Amino acid sequence: MSVLAILSRPSLEAPAARPSSEPFELADPDVPHLSVLDLAATRGDGVFETVSARFGRPHALDAHLRRFARSSALLDLPAPDLPAWRSAILAVASELADAGEALIKVVLSRGVEGGAAPTGWVHGAAAPDFTAARTRGIRVVFLDRGYRHDVEQTSPWLLAGAKTLSYAVNRAVLREAARRGADDVIFVSSDGVVLEGPTSTVLFRSGDRLLTPGTGLGILEGTTQGDVFAWAESAGIETGYALLGPEELAQADAIWLVSSGRHAAPVRELDGVARAVDADLTARINAHLLDREH
Amino acid sequence: MSVLAILSRPSLEAPAARPSSEPFELADPDVPHLSVLDLAATRGDGVFETVSARFGRPHALDAHLRRFARSSALLDLPAPDLPAWRSAILAVASELADAGEALIKVVLSRGVEGGAAPTGWVHGAAAPDFTAARTRGIRVVFLDRGYRHDVEQTSPWLLAGAKTLSYAVNRAVLREAARRGADDVIFVSSDGVVLEGPTSTVLFRSGDRLLTPGTGLGILEGTTQGDVFAWAESAGIETGYALLGPEELAQADAIWLVSSGRHAAPVRELDGVARAVDADLTARINAHLLDREH
Repeated sequence: MSVLAILSRPSLEAPAARPSSEPFELADPDVPHLSVLDLAATRGDGVFETVSARFGRPHALDAHLRRFARSSALLDLPAPDLPAWRSAILAVASELADAGEALIKVVLSRGVEGGAAPTGWVHGAAAPDFTAARTRGIRVVFLDRGYRHDVEQTSPWLLAGAKTLSYAVNRAVLREAARRGADDVIFVSSDGVVLEGPTSTVLFRSGDRLLTPGTGLGILEGTTQGDVFAWAESAGIETGYALLGPEELAQADAIWLVSSGRHAAPVRELDGVARAVDADLTARINAHLLDREH
Repeated sequence: MSVLAILSRPSLEAPAARPSSEPFELADPDVPHLSVLDLAATRGDGVFETVSARFGRPHALDAHLRRFARSSALLDLPAPDLPAWRSAILAVASELADAGEALIKVVLSRGVEGGAAPTGWVHGAAAPDFTAARTRGIRVVFLDRGYRHDVEQTSPWLLAGAKTLSYAVNRAVLREAARRGADDVIFVSSDGVVLEGPTSTVLFRSGDRLLTPGTGLGILEGTTQGDVFAWAESAGIETGYALLGPEELAQADAIWLVSSGRHAAPVRELDGVARAVDADLTARINAHLLDREH
């Protein structure tokens, strides 16, 4: 079962034009809704979020909407009407309440080429079973992202730090990982700084501290990592940010890739080298992420 | 007027399954044909070509189809059935014969997420009027592409050299150019090598030679530049490849950005500095490009 909400055109334009009617309509996900001229399809020209939900409640919704707006700004898209998007996401999540865990994709494209308005939709479906990744763990390889760690500052037109629809590379690296016998990837900058996964944030434990690469590295602010840090602090675990290279990361006591759908996936192999998984802390983190109230 | 041809599913799969029926059908471009789950729209996961045509004849079709196949291979997409694509492109071009100059977009996506087959379409429309760019010229700025000049060799998963649907950066740089009072961009590698435009090839004249940055720099083999070189050689103009930096390019006697739609656009301003336009050679090149028989 899947559910689709299409944002109404006024809710995609300036807030001044915001209608009093519903800002979206539910639509049949199994029929075509997009023009072949939509810039999402012809140029990957738009932004997205993937929001997890459980029993009808989306997780980290404020953080996702904040990042959605930030990505839109980096692409010079019209500022999204966040209340409209929120109501569409809540409606889709609600329809999927019986699915247990669900994944909701939130997409804003620049619209049909030469047209006047963006295109927006929210699509949700039951999540796949992530149990194996969350417990047994995943095999990860380091791959060069090609960019220096400071491109977000020097070259903002490269859109580093924006979650754009131009994800062909983020998918190509997963095929490269598979060729190397791995499941996922940690990107390293061309000058040797650990960045993020193609669809996840790197988290690691060093002694009794939980750490993640800092912001400003052209990487996404992790919505799930943010919730892990908030929980960790409430549980008395120290958190922090680190600028480090792959060799230093390999020294960590435990490593995870955390993301909206899969939550915390412990790294059980890094560049072909087996690693111990911190089963207890992994279970505590995932229990918290699954039980979040929002 | 615009024309849409949608490739039939068998023609997108293995050649063994190739049907004897038409490999495409003409469709109404003004109604939706794409699922919101198509990976073209959600991940920019596919490849494309833009082919110019005049009086119903596509230009450089063999070179476009060759590059289309090469891009597909770099993305691990099923090898396109080139005769099927060729016939679809010819049909679309033929419908637009009365339009004079036309632009034809050829798109292959990985298809609906979780589905079994790619999606493919060919869309054509009358070209905009490029006269001003072709005669008066364009203002260009250099912008960092972020990658080293050798990423095609070191990091093939970055897909440098593939013409993918993930073009958000190629569009963002045009907005950055506009903020700088320019019309277009020449990318420079992070280690200072002149590469290409976001949708064009750099061509320049040094004395009586026509030159272009070489292959292997993670840039596209220019289909239009290839035709310019073939013409130049037949006209007794020496051609060649050059690895050079932006300061050296600025010393050239004339610079053009050449591309399928706009053909040769002389650079009349580079990073804010006015330049002489070689009006005679520009006119000869564009006359040849417009009159090509194929």
